[in-house]
Amino acid sequence: MVLNNISSSIPTTALGVLEVDISKLIENYRYLQSQAPGAVCGAAVKADAYGLGQNTVSYYLALAGCDNFFVVQVEEGIRLREYLRTALPHKNPKIYVMVGVMPGTEDLLIHYGLIPTLLAPYQLMLWRKAAFRHEKNLPAVLHFDTGMARTGFMADQAIDLANSSGDLEGISLKMIMSHLTCSNEHEHPMNQIQLKAFDQLCAGFPGVPQSLSNSWGIFLGKDFHKNVVRPGGGIYGLSLAQGVTNDIPGIKGIISIKAKIVQIHTIRAGASVGYSGTFVAQRPTRIATLGVGYADGYTRGLSNKGIVKIKNWIVPVIGRVSMDFVTVDVTDIPENQVKEGEWALLMGDELRLKDVASQIETISYELAVNISERYHRQYIMTDIESI
Amino acid sequence: MVLNNISSSIPTTALGVLEVDISKLIENYRYLQSQAPGAVCGAAVKADAYGLGQNTVSYYLALAGCDNFFVVQVEEGIRLREYLRTALPHKNPKIYVMVGVMPGTEDLLIHYGLIPTLLAPYQLMLWRKAAFRHEKNLPAVLHFDTGMARTGFMADQAIDLANSSGDLEGISLKMIMSHLTCSNEHEHPMNQIQLKAFDQLCAGFPGVPQSLSNSWGIFLGKDFHKNVVRPGGGIYGLSLAQGVTNDIPGIKGIISIKAKIVQIHTIRAGASVGYSGTFVAQRPTRIATLGVGYADGYTRGLSNKGIVKIKNWIVPVIGRVSMDFVTVDVTDIPENQVKEGEWALLMGDELRLKDVASQIETISYELAVNISERYHRQYIMTDIESI
Repeated sequence: MVLNNISSSIPTTALGVLEVDISKLIENYRYLQSQAPGAVCGAAVKADAYGLGQNTVSYYLALAGCDNFFVVQVEEGIRLREYLRTALPHKNPKIYVMVGVMPGTEDLLIHYGLIPTLLAPYQLMLWRKAAFRHEKNLPAVLHFDTGMARTGFMADQAIDLANSSGDLEGISLKMIMSHLTCSNEHEHPMNQIQLKAFDQLCAGFPGVPQSLSNSWGIFLGKDFHKNVVRPGGGIYGLSLAQGVTNDIPGIKGIISIKAKIVQIHTIRAGASVGYSGTFVAQRPTRIATLGVGYADGYTRGLSNKGIVKIKNWIVPVIGRVSMDFVTVDVTDIPENQVKEGEWALLMGDELRLKDVASQIETISYELAVNISERYHRQYIMTDIESI
Repeated sequence: MVLNNISSSIPTTALGVLEVDISKLIENYRYLQSQAPGAVCGAAVKADAYGLGQNTVSYYLALAGCDNFFVVQVEEGIRLREYLRTALPHKNPKIYVMVGVMPGTEDLLIHYGLIPTLLAPYQLMLWRKAAFRHEKNLPAVLHFDTGMARTGFMADQAIDLANSSGDLEGISLKMIMSHLTCSNEHEHPMNQIQLKAFDQLCAGFPGVPQSLSNSWGIFLGKDFHKNVVRPGGGIYGLSLAQGVTNDIPGIKGIISIKAKIVQIHTIRAGASVGYSGTFVAQRPTRIATLGVGYADGYTRGLSNKGIVKIKNWIVPVIGRVSMDFVTVDVTDIPENQVKEGEWALLMGDELRLKDVASQIETISYELAVNISERYHRQYIMTDIESI
């Protein structure tokens, strides 16, 4: 088997590294799959696989048996199809485009073999016209809204559709899907409300495969599994810190983010640090300056708040995070234990993304998708047997 | 003259557009230049030109006469050099790499004709060794810290250097620079403290060109201009909303961000919207769903807070911003005035970046650099005479 993009060396130019553990990625995927044994387990790889690299992540998920990939944008779908055609020519996984059919994209969807999830009547019309033009049935998913109020046919539109079968002429209906709003809150009444609404709508389309659950929906029980589950965050080891999800024991963190120490220097007590001098040293203070900043997704909200790990020491961010640099206080690390050119861990291990996210009142998902292109992406395989 | 990347058509697949007004970019550059008439005006194009596209931005700045480009990372410098060599073969602008010489990058810096700004004694040693190996003097800038405590030789190190001229053997010293911490706060005492410290350190290096000011430093008066100014945010029309900067009247906004309406639907009073149902409709509510989300830098902090403009209506974001979608309340727009496939303005015009940034307690710089690659970048030229 060919291993793609698994690398051991970091270029000398890299000031930041995003390390993705492919073995654990696959373990997470398999674990999620095992929790929904009656369903097929797909994967949401939209938004560049939540910041981790759509192509490489999809490649290994496909090797692990994933045959259903969910993106949002047509361009994401095209890129994924082109990559997988080259990288895994013997596989031809299904790629679903969740924004559906936007005007003018019909021929691209057809050319690249992408399956749109139709969101609204106008998209159904566009797709039917395309089918007519191409003189063939076109595959599609119908997305029904059951309470998210974001995308999808409203209940009355879905019922109309079920009652007038001619409306689906030209369409080869592959799946009906909906999206849960509160799946990370197991006891939230919305889960049962959505399940019931979904079941009622699906009853109008007997025999058509169904998909309802994202990562956390899988843990709501068998009723939620339907035919296809489509986890995203769970595969990537993310969690929803602002929700009430308990961490799922079987899900492992797969992301580490590191930054290079570009300079170490000592300032006197009373000196200030960074823009607007928001940190004032209370003692002679040794500072390590790291070569990443808010342009790399190490958000400015972590100014005077973040913590990083250098070897076994946990040390605080001091001063404002600037666009390209972060300053941390390394006074408490013995001088010979920290050197320019070495790496500091920003997230990963005990510096869990969900905890960092909590500090800035968001969720780990947002941290992950903001990881910038400036990071060198390093894919590691801790256990070659995992595939 | 060849116009690069100036386009009028948006691909049908685009769900978000970042529009950059190149005419105003150049006007801003010229205006900043005019405010420091005795100095050369360079440009900070690090972090992909603050999110706006390093190559295209640099191309037009070079056409406008900019000959001094400042990046942070070696890879940014390499990319810029390669691009400009092809796009503008008759020009050979200076490119400064502000992270300086990281171990192992010496030959790349030399090969691509990049000038490192040396931050610390260890970098000077690396660069001198490279000069010895290559048997030629190598160009460098010395970065002196005058109060930022982030990067640069400390004052005592700078003084040592001035007193032992042998330490610069092998170095062709092109410039001395430092960085202001509070330049957006005109009355802040730190400005004069840093100016004085800089002048004292520079006195040890007579005849060497000097650079002290970023965008806002230019407006601190002639003493701060020195030989080279190096604005970034000012060129891009950004401002520091959290500081006390008054808007500079001569600086124009150049960024617009738009998102496509992918669906319009109506929910009943009492229905909730988005993850965790954080918005509950108080009336029958018509919702437009836009095809961008926090993966595109429309940050989750704008949930139930942001506002967008559709034609001439300003309407509120309702519910949580999700990874790929935003929902806005368009009930107050006449039904025939808003359609699927049309565009909503997220930032630009009266939706100033600084105001959006204030809502989420950051600065417009952070919004700009987080604009994702998923946006189609459209460069427009409102006034062809501007170049």
